[in-house]
Amino acid sequence: MKKTALIMAGGRGERFWPRSRQSLPKQFLSLTDDKKTMLQLTVERILPLVAMEDIFIVTNRGYRELVRAQLPELPEGNILCEPVGKNTAPCIGLGAVHIAKKYGDAVMMVLPSDHLIKYTSLFLNTLTDACEVAEQGGNLVTLGIAPDCPETGYGYIKFQPEQTLGRAFAVERFVEKPDLETAKAYLASEQYLWNSGMFIWKTSTILDNLQAHLPETYAGLCKIREAIGTPMEEQVLEREFQGFRAESIDYGVMEKAQDIYILSGAFGWDDVGSWLAVSRIKRSNELGNVVEGNVVTVDTRDTIIQGGGKLIAAVGLEDMIVVDSEDALLICEKAHAGDIKKVLENLKICNRREYL
Amino acid sequence: MKKTALIMAGGRGERFWPRSRQSLPKQFLSLTDDKKTMLQLTVERILPLVAMEDIFIVTNRGYRELVRAQLPELPEGNILCEPVGKNTAPCIGLGAVHIAKKYGDAVMMVLPSDHLIKYTSLFLNTLTDACEVAEQGGNLVTLGIAPDCPETGYGYIKFQPEQTLGRAFAVERFVEKPDLETAKAYLASEQYLWNSGMFIWKTSTILDNLQAHLPETYAGLCKIREAIGTPMEEQVLEREFQGFRAESIDYGVMEKAQDIYILSGAFGWDDVGSWLAVSRIKRSNELGNVVEGNVVTVDTRDTIIQGGGKLIAAVGLEDMIVVDSEDALLICEKAHAGDIKKVLENLKICNRREYL
Repeated sequence: MKKTALIMAGGRGERFWPRSRQSLPKQFLSLTDDKKTMLQLTVERILPLVAMEDIFIVTNRGYRELVRAQLPELPEGNILCEPVGKNTAPCIGLGAVHIAKKYGDAVMMVLPSDHLIKYTSLFLNTLTDACEVAEQGGNLVTLGIAPDCPETGYGYIKFQPEQTLGRAFAVERFVEKPDLETAKAYLASEQYLWNSGMFIWKTSTILDNLQAHLPETYAGLCKIREAIGTPMEEQVLEREFQGFRAESIDYGVMEKAQDIYILSGAFGWDDVGSWLAVSRIKRSNELGNVVEGNVVTVDTRDTIIQGGGKLIAAVGLEDMIVVDSEDALLICEKAHAGDIKKVLENLKICNRREYL
Repeated sequence: MKKTALIMAGGRGERFWPRSRQSLPKQFLSLTDDKKTMLQLTVERILPLVAMEDIFIVTNRGYRELVRAQLPELPEGNILCEPVGKNTAPCIGLGAVHIAKKYGDAVMMVLPSDHLIKYTSLFLNTLTDACEVAEQGGNLVTLGIAPDCPETGYGYIKFQPEQTLGRAFAVERFVEKPDLETAKAYLASEQYLWNSGMFIWKTSTILDNLQAHLPETYAGLCKIREAIGTPMEEQVLEREFQGFRAESIDYGVMEKAQDIYILSGAFGWDDVGSWLAVSRIKRSNELGNVVEGNVVTVDTRDTIIQGGGKLIAAVGLEDMIVVDSEDALLICEKAHAGDIKKVLENLKICNRREYL
């Protein structure tokens, strides 16, 4: 069966401010030692499994030109633009109807555009195994990550170790981000995996599930599908999307569906959730510093400095994040990385949108 | 007797980098809430006691235009330029011969240009008292500051509490910067004051002392004095200064001289020795932050941020110093303020003189 990929690149993440901006979200940034952006790495990673012309990028209208510029070899028609973000269920539904319109039934790998995977061949093996399970009947397949700490920032998925299909396990349930005690219990139970947000299914399977669990969204998607390639396409897309209820695929479909399987991925996954990730994904020096740009350090350790042309002198720093950009500079204690969003809230309140 | 002032403005302090540069040392910066520079404040402070035409500025040749620009009302002939810095003894000697040439014998107040004084009227009262002592016989008078902590960064002066002259005490000896234990003993003894580097004497007194204790320098100064106002002035100044031994007035004269008196000054003196001083001399907010420029703070306290147009977002900082300038940014933990010079050493070694 035809293998396709739907890469979701509409996110507006604020956690990499001031490098990421509303006009340049994380997926369009290079955050590794590689010069390639997160989106470019995501596409490159799956090329052994999916041909370029079978890769679809779903994004916000405002990012169409960024996608074109970063993926010049992608057919222009493979860039699907949401008129407005309505969370992942309508986004994935839009991808599904486009792929179904083009190929009829096909395997569809849904992948975030802003995660990193260290071991590509292990990832591709897992994806291949997942495709095999997805092609059988009406199975919804997801990839889970074996937790190595009681992380409270991710959703978890409980699986049934005895109930297998190929290399997959049956999913018992999806659970939302837990508190620390619950996360510790999940970790100890060895029956929970992190929800990676990667899904593999046939277009027919996900559309059937959308029909069953989000019938209004499904009805709108059918109208969009009919209009594809007609002069009405943009108008119908606009109208239907505006009417969609914002809903995640997890809550709208996965938590209600049957026949869900999960494969445990051990391929060096990193969601690159904040500037802290840079310490993991970029080379650090012998003092634990990750330094780029025109930088002088004195008695500084375990610090991330992302500069440019301007000289940055760091004296006596420990566990800090320093990010300089053209018009804004961030200086943040690592333990407060989660509070960067407070800066953006402050800027919004003060109506200083030029910095967002 | 005529009262004159010699303000020493040749320093090249590095402690306010990156605001201070070799081309713009501390005395030419505004570091208070006032817009005036340290030099301007120094001149303004003594105007009730010394007329503008009786104020002399001794500085390095490279700073002549800065002095002119900052003190447009000062007669141009009152800017005395050293061809090369040779520490304070030749510098003060140069001032003395110029003042003596113009006025014969006169009282001369020698003042640093880069200290702050909070209570001007108390300072002027102390200076007036000091002038009275200096006008008698051949007395060398200095102002001392009552220590409020065992500071190891200043020289100390031991005085004899029983031996007074007017409001002054006889000086027993000058001592160099002590170690912490010694400084604690000085503090406890109540017989030591900090050496403020401010001196009051007649031109005849200091020239006599230079003749007695630094005869070679004195001989050179006499040649300079003779050449003042002649076509040979610059040439003689250049030649004699190059030949001078670099010597501080403290070591070269004060530690060897007789008839030294000290007045204890309680006028809110601050030597503004590093960026840390900014917390004392500028208004801080309720979280202890001293913030200037385009700044957003989140969970930040006891931090100095001196910015400009660029947005600076500070998240989770405590006891930090952040100074942004056109081409260089300093981020320094307060406890490491003394290590800013290591940045400059590094820049010198790497021959990046554009940042010095």
